Amino acid sequence: MARTGGFAGPVGLVGLGLIGGSLALDLQRQGHQVHALVHRPGTAERARQRRLAQTVDTDASVLAGCRLVVLALPLDRLLEPPAELVAALPARAVVTDVGSVKAPVLERWRRLHPRFVASHPMAGTADAGVEAGRPDLFRGRPWVATPAVDTEPAALAEVRALAETVGACWLTCDAEAHDRAVALISHLPVLVSAALLLAAERGAAAEAPGSDLPQLVRVLASSGFADTTRVGGGNPELGTLMARCNRQAVAKALSGYRACLEDLEQLLLAADWDGLEAELGRCHRLRPEFL
Amino acid sequence: MARTGGFAGPVGLVGLGLIGGSLALDLQRQGHQVHALVHRPGTAERARQRRLAQTVDTDASVLAGCRLVVLALPLDRLLEPPAELVAALPARAVVTDVGSVKAPVLERWRRLHPRFVASHPMAGTADAGVEAGRPDLFRGRPWVATPAVDTEPAALAEVRALAETVGACWLTCDAEAHDRAVALISHLPVLVSAALLLAAERGAAAEAPGSDLPQLVRVLASSGFADTTRVGGGNPELGTLMARCNRQAVAKALSGYRACLEDLEQLLLAADWDGLEAELGRCHRLRPEFL
Repeated sequence: MARTGGFAGPVGLVGLGLIGGSLALDLQRQGHQVHALVHRPGTAERARQRRLAQTVDTDASVLAGCRLVVLALPLDRLLEPPAELVAALPARAVVTDVGSVKAPVLERWRRLHPRFVASHPMAGTADAGVEAGRPDLFRGRPWVATPAVDTEPAALAEVRALAETVGACWLTCDAEAHDRAVALISHLPVLVSAALLLAAERGAAAEAPGSDLPQLVRVLASSGFADTTRVGGGNPELGTLMARCNRQAVAKALSGYRACLEDLEQLLLAADWDGLEAELGRCHRLRPEFL
Repeated sequence: MARTGGFAGPVGLVGLGLIGGSLALDLQRQGHQVHALVHRPGTAERARQRRLAQTVDTDASVLAGCRLVVLALPLDRLLEPPAELVAALPARAVVTDVGSVKAPVLERWRRLHPRFVASHPMAGTADAGVEAGRPDLFRGRPWVATPAVDTEPAALAEVRALAETVGACWLTCDAEAHDRAVALISHLPVLVSAALLLAAERGAAAEAPGSDLPQLVRVLASSGFADTTRVGGGNPELGTLMARCNRQAVAKALSGYRACLEDLEQLLLAADWDGLEAELGRCHRLRPEFL
């Protein structure tokens, strides 16, 4: 596949949340023309105040002259796109998305646009919305594309150039492999972490009436609890969308997780401290491989 | 109970790891005499180089003149203390510990020393050993004491003064309540987090031969995975000791956790997205209560 060594603007952004807004800032800083389509007039106004794009509009015609369009939409809107958005995408433009689940997006969009490339920049903060975008969000982070057999090589090269322009590390893989991987390292942690919050609350509340345990767990929780529950206490809509759009892989990951936890529980119940320490030692050695 | 408004030195520290070393630095900065007993000559040498205490020795007689002795030992050594340590503790000194499990420590030590106070400063970093101690580790952190009916009020007041001298927030509770609380917010997270590392590795490895999933999960894991697995990838000896010394409460916490996770799994399998979002919303609201 030939590399273009860069991409020619103007770039269209559909959505100016954390991902769209951050892309907008990076691209403008490098002199690219950015035209953005947003849903609400109020969002458009705030985006203009933040100078997130040269043009911000709620009318899809703003995308007319764009050669590359990034669909920076939540998964549900990406999977059920408004007809007027699809109609407004220039037929010659390369179109990509930023969704965190790839197989259903690819399945849907390969039928909607001839130059679609499914991709997923793996970057984020706890923030969302039109105020969330910030420069350099993608620097050093993976940007995964999941081409299908009919994905156009030149379109893929354009998206790669976009990713590399904002400092991301490009890689490609199969869409199903991507979805299984993010189920294990991104979607499963949300549920595992959420259940810890529920267990701490319910476990404390289940004590005898008058017990000070509900207050005690809240006072004593420290940085370990804070870290382990961060993703579980995050955006509920986002967590639900991920589970919904990646249901099968998440269910499989959960089932595998349950088996791993039960193994540790068995060691505890059997008072097999050498066995438990061996497993925790394995975890201690494993973790750096993921960082 | 009368507050002393401070405590009179000299202070004896048994162990100069993260907790002992940090206490040593804070106490010396405030002009207190600190005498430390350590296990190995090499540790004593490094502690002297770091000026962690006025006197550092491997002979328990170093504690002879101390009016307050802090047993900053790992749980296993605390529960099976060397006879020469017990013999060397001045009968008139107040003796406290820093163990993260309280009922077994209290049970053991109330028989070993008349002025023992069970306590637990809830502070930590990922570091351990004689190089780990640092100033201000306890500032703003809870320091929990778990007095028994026969704990001497004046001894408790001395330990409170120690805790407040290093800036900790003093509280007292029942030893069993403490142990159930830390099972939920400190020991359970270690196992939940460890199982996530095992599940990510096993889930990826279980794919068909030649799959790039094992590599993919490692490359794509981001800050969410890093945070959620931090305590599970920590010190294996420490994690095992906690589970071993708080086995019953940890087993109960694990069983409650399993139920919470299965509830989330059922919502996923039933495709009950409103239900899942409601539970994740509950987690989102719960988490700030713990921080």
